[in-house]
Amino acid sequence: MSSQSFFSDTIGIVGIGLIGSSIARAIKEKKLAQKIYLYDSSKDHCDQALELGIVDHICDSVSELTENCSFIFLCIPPGQFLDLGCKIGPLLKEGTILTDVGSVKKSIINQLTPYLKKNVYFVPGHPVAGTENSGPTAGFSSLFENRWCILTPPNDLTKEEEKAYDYVQAFWESLGTNVKRMSPEKHDLILGITSHLPHLIAYTIVGTAVDLEEDIKHDVIKFSAGGFRDFTRIAASDPTMWRDIFLGNKEAIIEILGRFTEDLTELQKAVRRGHGHQLFDFFSKTRKVRKEVIESGQSQ
Amino acid sequence: MSSQSFFSDTIGIVGIGLIGSSIARAIKEKKLAQKIYLYDSSKDHCDQALELGIVDHICDSVSELTENCSFIFLCIPPGQFLDLGCKIGPLLKEGTILTDVGSVKKSIINQLTPYLKKNVYFVPGHPVAGTENSGPTAGFSSLFENRWCILTPPNDLTKEEEKAYDYVQAFWESLGTNVKRMSPEKHDLILGITSHLPHLIAYTIVGTAVDLEEDIKHDVIKFSAGGFRDFTRIAASDPTMWRDIFLGNKEAIIEILGRFTEDLTELQKAVRRGHGHQLFDFFSKTRKVRKEVIESGQSQ
Repeated sequence: MSSQSFFSDTIGIVGIGLIGSSIARAIKEKKLAQKIYLYDSSKDHCDQALELGIVDHICDSVSELTENCSFIFLCIPPGQFLDLGCKIGPLLKEGTILTDVGSVKKSIINQLTPYLKKNVYFVPGHPVAGTENSGPTAGFSSLFENRWCILTPPNDLTKEEEKAYDYVQAFWESLGTNVKRMSPEKHDLILGITSHLPHLIAYTIVGTAVDLEEDIKHDVIKFSAGGFRDFTRIAASDPTMWRDIFLGNKEAIIEILGRFTEDLTELQKAVRRGHGHQLFDFFSKTRKVRKEVIESGQSQ
Repeated sequence: MSSQSFFSDTIGIVGIGLIGSSIARAIKEKKLAQKIYLYDSSKDHCDQALELGIVDHICDSVSELTENCSFIFLCIPPGQFLDLGCKIGPLLKEGTILTDVGSVKKSIINQLTPYLKKNVYFVPGHPVAGTENSGPTAGFSSLFENRWCILTPPNDLTKEEEKAYDYVQAFWESLGTNVKRMSPEKHDLILGITSHLPHLIAYTIVGTAVDLEEDIKHDVIKFSAGGFRDFTRIAASDPTMWRDIFLGNKEAIIEILGRFTEDLTELQKAVRRGHGHQLFDFFSKTRKVRKEVIESGQSQ
């Protein structure tokens, strides 16, 4: 047995998709745990994870995971937290720190917390990183390097809860991830704009193209370099996860969609009426945002 | 004097922005002309081009260009063809081959052709390549490699016109560009979907974000990795060019926007009503398009 001091002797992961498998790889690479326990309802995913050597033990039941781990990552689609919560909640050992990686926070917190006992610490988290690929083979250990992870604490934290947030924060920082805390409401609004709306729009544009006549569709794919290509990448993301995100962040998305539609209608009117000056002003304004994105180090 | 056989002894370029300067660089790199003549109304751009060594001679007037070149590229924003056309048209030497690089074709053809004499051959072209950067320093010689250039001939071509199209096609092929011919109407519809609509949407999304409260806007930029970042890149494109594209391809864009808005409204309704199944089906459909894009070699 190694004499190394691990971040945690054991780490439990529920769900070994893109994010779960990237966390597992990063834990292995940085030697943050002696043993990774996995629970995943898909036998295929479990077999793949073992074969890839990114986890050490497959749990046949949720209880096998909770018995062996007091630091657990939930890496499942945002719509599955209620089902998992009622299963895992009563089984968690006292003092367990539970965290997640879901792209919506209010909905996940609402699903999970009714099932959690006192002295179990849930730290809602969201690493803002990903690709359009999914499954255990899609992960990679550097996915979170120099990216942000948002933790969404409630207003008042007890001393023990504060410790749990610090613990999860330290974990992410050990992967080279920057950590920021904000309220779940603010998270859901910000991500609604930066991620959920862009995905909804990309899905729509690609969907509009899918419905075109066959010969036009063929040429659309052929000449996709002009912008459409970027949208096809975004619109190739995991359908289950994105369905859950849209349903889980419904209010913020509908609100942002409202603003977006107003702005689009304005631009459409300017195009129809030939108001070149208005278009030019609008496009000059948006150009500046790119500079701010680059200066903020988010351009890679 | 070199004994090399050039593609053309001299090549004229009007406009030395991203595309014009990339063409100039590619001509230099592949040694396709002995001398490149430039006309550009911006003295700064002319100075930069000379300093970069990507052109050989700056023309003080359009007539200096037309006297010295019988193969001329028009690399100006789509809204400037009428102004340039009435200036350059009467000056072109017999047998001159004139081509352009504009992102809209019907509008450019309509602006330019009334000013062209017989025995001058206009070959409307559109290399489907670019970046969000602009100006002479933004160009690079490999911009067109393995990309498509679309030529848009009318229905019937005379033998001489056919030769002019073949000549321009051979030029692009010598840069490693694939060439495809289609009608201007079809070009404008296809590009409306693959490029103009995505740009309009990206401009809108980024514009919507610009109007947010300052603290929210700050966080939107910070956490832009989730999809928004891609949109800021697209929405950083040249405002003059894009104003002209939207005004020049108004009909196709309004038509496609109509379809897009219908589809978005459907998705919005599904989100509002919580119709997860419908969302999942839609997202599964769009995921397949990415595979087709990758298989078509357009994924880089």
